[in-house]
Amino acid sequence: MIRIGIYGYGNLGRGVEKAVKKNKDMELVAVFTRRDPKSLVIDTPTAKVVNINDVLNYKDKIDVMVICGGSATDLPEMTPALAKNFNVIDSFDTHANVPSHYNNVNNSAEVTKHVAIISVGWDPGMFSLNRCIMSAVLPDGKDYTFWGKGVSQGHSDAIRRIKGVIDARQYTCPVEKALEEVRSGKNPELTTREKHTRLCYVVAKEGADLARIEKEIKEMPNYFADYDTTVNFISLEELKKNHSGIPHGGFVIRSGKTSDGVNHIVEYSLKLDSNPEFTGSILVTYARALKRMYDRSDYGCKTVFDVAPKDLSKESYIDLLKHTL
Amino acid sequence: MIRIGIYGYGNLGRGVEKAVKKNKDMELVAVFTRRDPKSLVIDTPTAKVVNINDVLNYKDKIDVMVICGGSATDLPEMTPALAKNFNVIDSFDTHANVPSHYNNVNNSAEVTKHVAIISVGWDPGMFSLNRCIMSAVLPDGKDYTFWGKGVSQGHSDAIRRIKGVIDARQYTCPVEKALEEVRSGKNPELTTREKHTRLCYVVAKEGADLARIEKEIKEMPNYFADYDTTVNFISLEELKKNHSGIPHGGFVIRSGKTSDGVNHIVEYSLKLDSNPEFTGSILVTYARALKRMYDRSDYGCKTVFDVAPKDLSKESYIDLLKHTL
Repeated sequence: MIRIGIYGYGNLGRGVEKAVKKNKDMELVAVFTRRDPKSLVIDTPTAKVVNINDVLNYKDKIDVMVICGGSATDLPEMTPALAKNFNVIDSFDTHANVPSHYNNVNNSAEVTKHVAIISVGWDPGMFSLNRCIMSAVLPDGKDYTFWGKGVSQGHSDAIRRIKGVIDARQYTCPVEKALEEVRSGKNPELTTREKHTRLCYVVAKEGADLARIEKEIKEMPNYFADYDTTVNFISLEELKKNHSGIPHGGFVIRSGKTSDGVNHIVEYSLKLDSNPEFTGSILVTYARALKRMYDRSDYGCKTVFDVAPKDLSKESYIDLLKHTL
Repeated sequence: MIRIGIYGYGNLGRGVEKAVKKNKDMELVAVFTRRDPKSLVIDTPTAKVVNINDVLNYKDKIDVMVICGGSATDLPEMTPALAKNFNVIDSFDTHANVPSHYNNVNNSAEVTKHVAIISVGWDPGMFSLNRCIMSAVLPDGKDYTFWGKGVSQGHSDAIRRIKGVIDARQYTCPVEKALEEVRSGKNPELTTREKHTRLCYVVAKEGADLARIEKEIKEMPNYFADYDTTVNFISLEELKKNHSGIPHGGFVIRSGKTSDGVNHIVEYSLKLDSNPEFTGSILVTYARALKRMYDRSDYGCKTVFDVAPKDLSKESYIDLLKHTL
C-alpha cells in the first residue's frame, strides 16, 4: 500500500482524497490542515486530521505527501520545506517560475534523499507531456494550446474584488473558428483575442451601477482587456443553481509536416466535470510513480518529463504488453 | 550525431528517411536492402546502399538500426537476429504476439548488451501510451480505440486476391454516432459493427462479375463479414488519381468518473496525411531515446512504456521546463 498524506484540504485536497479511494494500492493516512483539526470533517474515516505544526510526527508514516496549496504563495514555501522530510508532489502552475521552483525543491530533495515531483496536473502536466512528445515527433510544426470551456478561479476572484459585486463566475472559452483553423493544418498565427473569449456571470448588489461594473471588468488589464468579454448579470440563486460546478478542459494540437505537402494533426483534449477532482487524480497517479522512483533511489526533483509511463500504472509490465500496448 | 541505419526500404523505410532529414541531431548512414544495391536509388546522397548480407560490416558505424519490415514474417526473425549486433527499433504491430516477440528480442539484446525498442508507431505506440496513462489517471472508466478514416493495407490486399480484381483500396472508417456516444460519457458497449465501417474502391477486369466480387468481399470472414461494407467499382485511372495516398488516423478516448456523477473525457486523436511518414517520425524520435538509454547502459528490450518523455526531445531539460512544461 502506498501511504498518502494530503497537505491542505481545499477543493484540490478533497479531489486527491476522492482519487485515493479509486486506487486500491493506496491509503490516505492523514490530512494536514492549518485549521483546528477538530473543526475539520473529512471523507475518510480511517484517516487522521492533523495540524500542520505536527507534520513531523508523520515523517515515517507517509510515503508521498500531496501538497494542495496555491501556486502564488503556498507552494514556493511549502514544497521545498516539506521535501526535507517527505517525498512530495505538487501542482505548481506558475509557468514563468517553474525553473526557480524546480531548483529550490531539488536542493531540498537531493540533499535529504527524497523524491519530489512538481507541476503535476493537466496544464502543466498532461498538456506538457503532449507538447513535449508531439513536438519531438513532428519537429517541423507548431503547437497550440486552448483552454476551456472552464471556470477560471483567478478571473472569478478578480471580478469579485470590484465594488458592488457580490459573487461572480468566469468561464474561459476557446474560439471554435480558431480551433477549426488549427485542425485544418493552416498553422495560423493567432492573437490572444482570436484564441479565447471570456464569459462572466456576475451577481451585483441591489442598486449597484451595472454599467460601471461591466466597464471595469472589460477594461481590466491582463485579465480581460485583451479578450472579447461578455458580462451577464444574474441573481445569486441562478449563480448557485447553474454555476456551482468547477468544469474545465482544453486542447493541445500539434500540426506539422513530414515532407512537402504531407501534414499531420495530433490533438489531445480534455472535457472535465471537475477540475480539482481530475487534477487530484493525476497527482495520485504520479504519486505511484514517485514511490517507485524513491524505491529505486532515484532522488531529486522531477516533473512529468522524467516519468516512464509504466510507472504510472497499477498493471504489471507483462499485463501492459498483453492488454494495453 | 545519432547514426541511423534503415533495414528495409519500402514505404516505411522511406518514411524513416524523411524523418531523419527533419532532425538535425541525426544522420542516415546506410540503407540495407535484400535487392541489388545498385538497383536502389535513395533520397540521401550521403548514405550508402548496402546488401543485407553485408550488414555486419556496419556493426560499429550505426547507433540505431530502424527495422522496416512486416510484422507477419519479417520482424519476428529480423529483430531478435539484428539485436545481437545492433541497437534496434521496430514497429511490430501484431498485438497478440507482442509478449513472445518481446521475450525473443529481450533475450538477444540483454546478453549482447544492446537496447531494443519494439512496437513503436502510433498503434501500438502513441495510442498505447495514451491508453496506459489515461487508464491510470481514471481507473474507474473505460477506454475506446477507433481507427480511421484510413487505408488498411491488409484489407486492400485481401480484396486484390479476389478473382477478377485488378486493384483495390480499402478505408476503415469510425462510426460518427459511436464516437459521439463515447464523447457524451455514456460508456456504451459497442459491437465491432457499431464502431467501424469499411469502404472499398475496387478496379475490376473488363467483363468480370461485379455482383460476385461484391458478395465475396462483403462475406469474407474476419476481414469484412462483421462490418457494414460499401463496395464502389471505379476505373484504374480514378483509383490512381483519388486513392494513391496512404492517409490514416484514429481516436483513443477514455471516459471515467472520479466520484458519483462527476465524469471526465480524455481524447487523443490523429489525422495523418501519410501513415508511413508519421510512423517513421515516431520511430526516429524513439531512436533518440534509445541512444540515450544505451549510453546509460540501460540494456534489454523496451517499449514506449519504458521511455521517459524528456528522452524523446532534442531540447535540454531546462529548456523543457522553461518552454514546454
